[in-house]
Amino acid sequence: MSRNRLVVIGGDAAGMSAAAKVRRLDEQREIIVFERSPHTSYSACGLPYYIGGLVEAADDLVERTPATFRDKYRIDARIRHEVMEIDPGGGRVRVRDLEAGKEFWEGYDDLLIATGAHPRCPEVPGAGARGIYGLNTLQSGINVHQALAREAPRRAVVVGGGYIGLEMAEAMIERGIAVSLVQRGPEVMSTLDPDMGALVSQALREVGVTLYLKEVLTAFAVAGGRATGVITDRRTLEADIVFLGMGVLPNSQLAEAAGLPLGEKGAIRVDTRQRTPRGRIWAAGDCGETVNRITGKPFYVALGTVANKQGTVAGINLAGGDATFPGVVGTAVSKICAVEVARTGLLERELRELEWDYATAVIESRTRAGYYPGAGKVTVKLLAQKGSGRLLGGQIVGREGAAKRIDVVATAVTAGMTVQEVIDLDLSYAPPFSPVWDPVQIAARQLVKKV
Amino acid sequence: MSRNRLVVIGGDAAGMSAAAKVRRLDEQREIIVFERSPHTSYSACGLPYYIGGLVEAADDLVERTPATFRDKYRIDARIRHEVMEIDPGGGRVRVRDLEAGKEFWEGYDDLLIATGAHPRCPEVPGAGARGIYGLNTLQSGINVHQALAREAPRRAVVVGGGYIGLEMAEAMIERGIAVSLVQRGPEVMSTLDPDMGALVSQALREVGVTLYLKEVLTAFAVAGGRATGVITDRRTLEADIVFLGMGVLPNSQLAEAAGLPLGEKGAIRVDTRQRTPRGRIWAAGDCGETVNRITGKPFYVALGTVANKQGTVAGINLAGGDATFPGVVGTAVSKICAVEVARTGLLERELRELEWDYATAVIESRTRAGYYPGAGKVTVKLLAQKGSGRLLGGQIVGREGAAKRIDVVATAVTAGMTVQEVIDLDLSYAPPFSPVWDPVQIAARQLVKKV
Repeated sequence: MSRNRLVVIGGDAAGMSAAAKVRRLDEQREIIVFERSPHTSYSACGLPYYIGGLVEAADDLVERTPATFRDKYRIDARIRHEVMEIDPGGGRVRVRDLEAGKEFWEGYDDLLIATGAHPRCPEVPGAGARGIYGLNTLQSGINVHQALAREAPRRAVVVGGGYIGLEMAEAMIERGIAVSLVQRGPEVMSTLDPDMGALVSQALREVGVTLYLKEVLTAFAVAGGRATGVITDRRTLEADIVFLGMGVLPNSQLAEAAGLPLGEKGAIRVDTRQRTPRGRIWAAGDCGETVNRITGKPFYVALGTVANKQGTVAGINLAGGDATFPGVVGTAVSKICAVEVARTGLLERELRELEWDYATAVIESRTRAGYYPGAGKVTVKLLAQKGSGRLLGGQIVGREGAAKRIDVVATAVTAGMTVQEVIDLDLSYAPPFSPVWDPVQIAARQLVKKV
Repeated sequence: MSRNRLVVIGGDAAGMSAAAKVRRLDEQREIIVFERSPHTSYSACGLPYYIGGLVEAADDLVERTPATFRDKYRIDARIRHEVMEIDPGGGRVRVRDLEAGKEFWEGYDDLLIATGAHPRCPEVPGAGARGIYGLNTLQSGINVHQALAREAPRRAVVVGGGYIGLEMAEAMIERGIAVSLVQRGPEVMSTLDPDMGALVSQALREVGVTLYLKEVLTAFAVAGGRATGVITDRRTLEADIVFLGMGVLPNSQLAEAAGLPLGEKGAIRVDTRQRTPRGRIWAAGDCGETVNRITGKPFYVALGTVANKQGTVAGINLAGGDATFPGVVGTAVSKICAVEVARTGLLERELRELEWDYATAVIESRTRAGYYPGAGKVTVKLLAQKGSGRLLGGQIVGREGAAKRIDVVATAVTAGMTVQEVIDLDLSYAPPFSPVWDPVQIAARQLVKKV
């Protein structure tokens, strides 16, 4: 009897989306999920809001528990089980039961690797000290929450000004903890062009974050095994607690050891069906590579929404269907207190590297009609290819209602629209929602003259 | 010497966008604007918020005064001047100076008709009585504002549940005035499918509006020349003040009298460059017709944003450039207190009339991650063509952050995207902004199974 067993490594967004999808499409299949941490199917993206106190309980971030998977989905989700090795030839994985301290081999017919990512931390002196926190699992967030309660730190230092760095800075502000942020680049948010990043830097300063820009982490000061400060090429910042916000790297070690090819930033190579070159092994989520739909080139992104979508695609295919994940255009959104930040598409830096001839426009407008209460400032930057006029990306920084407008840009970029076609779009207008020309279209009107 | 004079009839969105555009592109041209009311370049869409008290002064709604046009743009904007007749053969208009009570002829080289629209009112007994208000000009809003201050009405009746009806109901709620609304159809907002309109009906009830659905206005009760009630086929509603919310009709009488062809709902026929078949006469804004980009058929819409865009297109062409207005997909947005309403594309009713085979999906989701504070309910309906899978429209009703998502639907519809392509979109996600699948994509996931 063919057991037709699917083994999934990793029980969060990608792994569980896939497992649940397989179950919906195939009532018979045996599905085992091994999850190293104590939790399944949680919102890692929600961790900063739990840490900041906006979300009360860690449990609120859990969408489905192992019990739910077992009882409702007949998915054998085993937490505290770490996969130590993949044996592709033997079609099996070596699993360590972290509670029992025992190891065993489990065979698979199909294997989905959904191991996620881990916070990047340079190998500098002191990097292994206690008191340095990165976020990836729910448990990592609980650890921070407990540390804040236990230690009542007064000074936090965030190293790195990406999304998680920003959100952790916000969480510290919410907690009333003094926070400094060290950033290697000229402005925070290197996923924005510097002119737009400067607006975010300013927003951080305005809510009380002390910024150290163009400074490089060289070491952590350590006393008694515990980090007491962040040392840059220019100064030492005393810290009661330290957060890593330098981005994440894919958890692809298992795959690499099993001989699977890695790609962009060391992420696992997959085709558009989420399959690795070893036919029975699939990968999805933050551990895997994807494609940038604008350039057609390999791309790495670690975002919950992408992980969910890739998991769903993998699940459909694992159940015998045919789905593809066509890639991303690089859309992301975040906020720092009242200032929203969003981006999609290519940056000027990337366009220069590609040697594409491009033009940009930056405009300031309002989120609502100027006379309507609550109309807040919004800055929109659009980028387009010269000659063709094709829209290549956009960045938005502004007050409530600003950021989600990036979705129009992402949709237009995906559709291959020109700047003129963006101007021609029939976007919604009423005074509580927008100026009479949507800010995205105001930017397009500026840009069309230059392409 | 060729005077090369442009005459514009109507000094609001379309007319003034055109006039300003011509001036930017052509420093020499003589531009005269005749505006019947005392104001130019105001936001008619803002009137309900002025009447409701959210916007303090009528002047706040004025973007540019006649003095600004004269001094900054060298545009001769003459308020309180009503054009009584167009003489296409003679290339002139007959103008009445409403202050001086005199008439004169003014010649034009090009003429732009931008006369706007007027509130629809059935010819029922009592329709001419005092105390019945419609909104179109800024002055019409000032009149309402003054009436409210003067008469302190306690009971308002709104006849018609379209956008303006909704917004006037909200304004009355803001003012603490008891408000009833009479609607001919089974639900308010006949620009939505009834299942989605029902959500808006419910939202109106929840803020205290008394609804009389499936009732038809038959007369106004009148005493001493003043409306004292609204009579339907089922009852008489006493009213201290009455508002018309049955939509608007184009002000195309002048054009019709001049022999210009009218189209959809009696709006002036224009080509995509905003030119009428009489070459020197152009039209833009609420008085003119446009095209539905989905059906390719003539379409009538009266919206400030469309008027602005058409005015800009007309202006570019009038200045010797070459611009086109490709039409609309029927996007609109409004709100009733905390409930936002948006729509784009085709309704089920329209699809049945077109005999297009279609499928729909309606889903309920949240505006933010479920655990994030302020996550509000949002209902999304999408419609698509069976077979091709092409997205044909969408409707959204929900809490803050819901409505502007319609712009993604409008963009995807315009791009001719399929439902699967909407699922594949890389839309922005972070807990304060969206669930991990955007509600629009959750709806698309339901819909893709049916197309």
